[in-house]
Amino acid sequence: MAGNSIGQHFRVTTFGESHGIALGCIIDGCPPGLEITEADIQIDLDRRRPGTSRYTTARREPDEVKILSGVFEGKTTGTSIGLLIENTDQRSKDYSEIKDKFRPGHADYTYHQKYGVRDYRGGGRSSARETAMRVAAGSVAKKYLKQEFGVEIRAYLSQMGEVAIDKVDWDEIENNPFFCPDVDKVDALDQLIRDLKKQGDSIGAKLQVVATNVPVGLGEPVFDRLDADIAHALMSINAVKGVEIGDGFDVVSQKGSQHRDELTPDGFASNHAGGILGGISTGQDIVANIALKPTSSITVPGETITREGESTQLITKGRHDPCVGIRAVPIAEAMLAIVVLDHLLRHRGQNHGVTTETPQI
Amino acid sequence: MAGNSIGQHFRVTTFGESHGIALGCIIDGCPPGLEITEADIQIDLDRRRPGTSRYTTARREPDEVKILSGVFEGKTTGTSIGLLIENTDQRSKDYSEIKDKFRPGHADYTYHQKYGVRDYRGGGRSSARETAMRVAAGSVAKKYLKQEFGVEIRAYLSQMGEVAIDKVDWDEIENNPFFCPDVDKVDALDQLIRDLKKQGDSIGAKLQVVATNVPVGLGEPVFDRLDADIAHALMSINAVKGVEIGDGFDVVSQKGSQHRDELTPDGFASNHAGGILGGISTGQDIVANIALKPTSSITVPGETITREGESTQLITKGRHDPCVGIRAVPIAEAMLAIVVLDHLLRHRGQNHGVTTETPQI
Amino acid sequence: MAGNSIGQHFRVTTFGESHGIALGCIIDGCPPGLEITEADIQIDLDRRRPGTSRYTTARREPDEVKILSGVFEGKTTGTSIGLLIENTDQRSKDYSEIKDKFRPGHADYTYHQKYGVRDYRGGGRSSARETAMRVAAGSVAKKYLKQEFGVEIRAYLSQMGEVAIDKVDWDEIENNPFFCPDVDKVDALDQLIRDLKKQGDSIGAKLQVVATNVPVGLGEPVFDRLDADIAHALMSINAVKGVEIGDGFDVVSQKGSQHRDELTPDGFASNHAGGILGGISTGQDIVANIALKPTSSITVPGETITREGESTQLITKGRHDPCVGIRAVPIAEAMLAIVVLDHLLRHRGQNHGVTTETPQI
Amino acid sequence: MAGNSIGQHFRVTTFGESHGIALGCIIDGCPPGLEITEADIQIDLDRRRPGTSRYTTARREPDEVKILSGVFEGKTTGTSIGLLIENTDQRSKDYSEIKDKFRPGHADYTYHQKYGVRDYRGGGRSSARETAMRVAAGSVAKKYLKQEFGVEIRAYLSQMGEVAIDKVDWDEIENNPFFCPDVDKVDALDQLIRDLKKQGDSIGAKLQVVATNVPVGLGEPVFDRLDADIAHALMSINAVKGVEIGDGFDVVSQKGSQHRDELTPDGFASNHAGGILGGISTGQDIVANIALKPTSSITVPGETITREGESTQLITKGRHDPCVGIRAVPIAEAMLAIVVLDHLLRHRGQNHGVTTETPQI
Repeated sequence: MAGNSIGQHFRVTTFGESHGIALGCIIDGCPPGLEITEADIQIDLDRRRPGTSRYTTARREPDEVKILSGVFEGKTTGTSIGLLIENTDQRSKDYSEIKDKFRPGHADYTYHQKYGVRDYRGGGRSSARETAMRVAAGSVAKKYLKQEFGVEIRAYLSQMGEVAIDKVDWDEIENNPFFCPDVDKVDALDQLIRDLKKQGDSIGAKLQVVATNVPVGLGEPVFDRLDADIAHALMSINAVKGVEIGDGFDVVSQKGSQHRDELTPDGFASNHAGGILGGISTGQDIVANIALKPTSSITVPGETITREGESTQLITKGRHDPCVGIRAVPIAEAMLAIVVLDHLLRHRGQNHGVTTETPQI
Repeated sequence: MAGNSIGQHFRVTTFGESHGIALGCIIDGCPPGLEITEADIQIDLDRRRPGTSRYTTARREPDEVKILSGVFEGKTTGTSIGLLIENTDQRSKDYSEIKDKFRPGHADYTYHQKYGVRDYRGGGRSSARETAMRVAAGSVAKKYLKQEFGVEIRAYLSQMGEVAIDKVDWDEIENNPFFCPDVDKVDALDQLIRDLKKQGDSIGAKLQVVATNVPVGLGEPVFDRLDADIAHALMSINAVKGVEIGDGFDVVSQKGSQHRDELTPDGFASNHAGGILGGISTGQDIVANIALKPTSSITVPGETITREGESTQLITKGRHDPCVGIRAVPIAEAMLAIVVLDHLLRHRGQNHGVTTETPQI
Repeated sequence: MAGNSIGQHFRVTTFGESHGIALGCIIDGCPPGLEITEADIQIDLDRRRPGTSRYTTARREPDEVKILSGVFEGKTTGTSIGLLIENTDQRSKDYSEIKDKFRPGHADYTYHQKYGVRDYRGGGRSSARETAMRVAAGSVAKKYLKQEFGVEIRAYLSQMGEVAIDKVDWDEIENNPFFCPDVDKVDALDQLIRDLKKQGDSIGAKLQVVATNVPVGLGEPVFDRLDADIAHALMSINAVKGVEIGDGFDVVSQKGSQHRDELTPDGFASNHAGGILGGISTGQDIVANIALKPTSSITVPGETITREGESTQLITKGRHDPCVGIRAVPIAEAMLAIVVLDHLLRHRGQNHGVTTETPQI
Repeated sequence: MAGNSIGQHFRVTTFGESHGIALGCIIDGCPPGLEITEADIQIDLDRRRPGTSRYTTARREPDEVKILSGVFEGKTTGTSIGLLIENTDQRSKDYSEIKDKFRPGHADYTYHQKYGVRDYRGGGRSSARETAMRVAAGSVAKKYLKQEFGVEIRAYLSQMGEVAIDKVDWDEIENNPFFCPDVDKVDALDQLIRDLKKQGDSIGAKLQVVATNVPVGLGEPVFDRLDADIAHALMSINAVKGVEIGDGFDVVSQKGSQHRDELTPDGFASNHAGGILGGISTGQDIVANIALKPTSSITVPGETITREGESTQLITKGRHDPCVGIRAVPIAEAMLAIVVLDHLLRHRGQNHGVTTETPQI
């Protein structure tokens, strides 16, 4: 059943395989009057692109986005926006290895079992290449949120393997190829990647994504809570295995007197909740963490089976990131942006003109 | 905007406030021919009910469910099923304290800001009482899954505060009031609850929920992945702040050679993935962990503000669980059951008759 | 699959069978702050109720609605609203006749084939009794539309059999049991019903439903056009076989120069379009016509088959309306109200703050 | 709010403006394993294309469709299918006339009021050019229905102006440029079109669309009835102002004894219902009629206003069909195919394995 859409009001639907002709998406429900250009979108696409440094894969994916509809004279018209990225790197390759074997840790086996047919070229639809369109759509959401409400959505790498950051300097993030906010950890990250390349292995990562200046009141109890929709959006990113809001799993050993964020006339005294209470935004920063598994595309040989169910071994050739988590930074931002904008429009429809007695905190 | 529904194919929509007249739900899209009685549903409701032991609140909530429609001569008819639980404990209380003050850590402030009006009696719609209908709907899903596919969905408490289990004995879970699978930890949990009651404080918890015998092939890439929908469903439970699939946040420091689950002619050699690859079920156990925050309903005084924004203090009176996580066990089972059944029906619609060459593992 | 909901933003989900315990619905997404009482809703329910005159069935269905949630201190809270009507007329009857035979013109055969099981008592879910909840939900929509935007939604009987009205006097509609706006046709309608009762037969009807003061701009091209959603909503009413917007089927023989509504500085010069252009409301009256088939519940014997496929005859006993179209007047109003409010909220979410250069016509 | 999608299970989302870079759509939820080529889709696109005869517009729109994803080695993979048609006729034109004036009978005024911004080139998103993607998506649905279930979906012109057909010869339909099934009316239609061209005027039309071999049991009461969803789909086609199922508006003057379709051991004795009872398919032919208004793109001058609200006149230049209804034949087929397939998948998910006692009629 149709599963390639996200969002109710601001809805993004995507298509495209890793080695197909093109990737594309339709953004439906975008407010009219937003100034948007291909260059605006390209900025985020370039941040996601592999090959931008020696730390990520060297494959050439220019990812040049085209706006095909929904924008007229530089502004969104309120109708559906078509975006397209042509795959320039479709050269015929030798897929005999992965055609008949299931790569362990990949979706080969499950796609085959679900659909009975599988585009095995580079992982087909299950490839992380699909996330390019998430980033493209997310950049439209980010621009509207920033311009109309001052909302900013940013992410960074907080841990890779055992290397965890000790501080967050937002200005540092774009200065290194790891999106790392702690300049003192960059060398250790660099060394870790070098070692993994030698080993032909990969490593997991942890990211934090933060939205600031989010209006209070976003989120629809009881199922479409803002945090539930954020969890859905972030968990839908390839390789993500965990999502936390605010203090996340640390709450397990917290006491109530310690966790609850007290209110003062100047605002909340803390933000253990991560900006969401009862599924509705508090106006504080929305803070989420995600865990990304190490990619299974490694050159360490692995046991697997053929389509006929016979035992065999497999090595994933080609150039692959030792840490896919790095590139997930702009993807995580995009997903959070899509959810926040979707809920902002949902909220505005139902609650326009609501006046509250409390001074806005 | 409408946010009180979950599921596309098997859809549950709920209503009801903590101290309103009644709670109810509509189950839409249930397959016909399933034998279901009020007694079947009551079993799970009783497992969730507070007051069943000294460890949970002593409030009397019989939670007697009535089937109002959609079942004829003991079987589901395929039409919408209406379920109702009347609130028997609606006696007028003194709400003056919480009427004008926002309880810290609760949804009072956000509901007020979102809607401009708030049913303050016992938390209104934001109360965990709402989860009774999730459990009721989930028990219908559980019965269908068990009967037609042998799927079993069970959860347990894996940690409370610093007390973590060391082993999982499924037979032990229903033998103690904590849904704890490790008999050797029951005394420690008991002592922790006693201490918290003395302190008037509360504590967080961690649960694991597991689905066994899940057919391979469930889940819709790329957004409605099975894991993404599970994350949505579990994060929508009151107090949940984190969700993990499989190894969860442990993957951050894992290597690819360590994480990937190798395949053998006899099946997968391990289950780090938690039963889901590329968003699609592998046929292995689906394993998820959730973190539940400590309830903010405690007698330790807290700083807050009035509706007029002035500084004040608040103590939450009444009988409250020191650990809301315990009662979340049947709720987590219900949410997982709803998601799995929803995806089973979604899959069946699109892929009926798909034949694969690989022997089913 | 889940099909018992209508609306995206203002969503109504219903349950209940003709002779079950109760009928109910959940209204999700209603704006907060609307003053609404059970008495408000009861007015429309009483207009729909059979037995209010000798022209409609004499069955006693008090249809007393209860608000179970979502309204606090007389105002909607923005959370889901639960409505319930208990069936008081559930006395055990002899259903042996319709249990094993399919009534021609009814849904007995199709429900049986679709679900394999069928609540045959009074038609079960396929009974027009289900429409009571549409009327209840619609009255909430009507009140919000009236109060916030001055929108009024009214319907009338424009034809029954060969008796067609010649004029529309809105003040006359509630003065006769036919919702007929032409006082000069009331006697003819009265005579037609008497004749049909003698014959044990029934007759079709045509209704017009009109919304005035609808804001310009409602409707979402290209699929969720306002007219498309109105067609969906009206065609979903039992017995409806045709829907027209504006001039409807008369356009087949119209020329373009005749049909197009010219614009002047004082507004549109005509309203052939029925208030909708390109799927979006023009600000003029929205005008729709519907055709309702004659009920198949008649005492003229009919040929049919048994569940075993053998030839047999059937007479529908009990008290039944010779013209079900009459009672459809408040139902048609309700459905149009639900669609208009849904689109108003959808529009407000996306286009809030849009400013146009043209003076509002 | 997002309105450019149709279908729940088999979902089609479209984008594109009349004079933009390209039109496209995403088909989501298509069953895997269907053999489909661009040539298959092109057949229906060519049937819709203007300029195929002197009766339709002479604009050159090759409408060459490209499959961008979701099809591998000639078969659908179950993932989202991206389709694209590049607009080859984007040459810069003089739009000054329609830029500042609202064409009467068109969506210019309503788009302007709704969004505050408008792509005025050739009607932008409101142009019938958008329907090309409906036809493309519909041809995929048609192929699956035909191949798996033997369902055939065909339409024809039943009336244009006062010229109505007297007989239906299915073999005749593709033999004349009017999709007219009555060879004896072709000359009259031809003359009517010639006269209109001289007058610079246009005319309305009526079509009938029929689905044969539809399985019994499709449709989801009570809101997503099969007939309600068909009405939605057909009314969403540009220029459609009326939809009938079965006998349609004729039922107004029918008696119950006349309308109800009696059942015999050999099947239904008649088909007044148009193949749908209680919102569920009966297994008989599904029959629907639609009325299409005369296009407002005519050279007869019309009164209108400028964006500033001042009185002015307008003539629509360019080559336009005198009867847009003709080209709607493949569009109507496409919309019915999308709805029937969507419901087939919905039904299969919920009711797979349902066994009924009645012999299939």
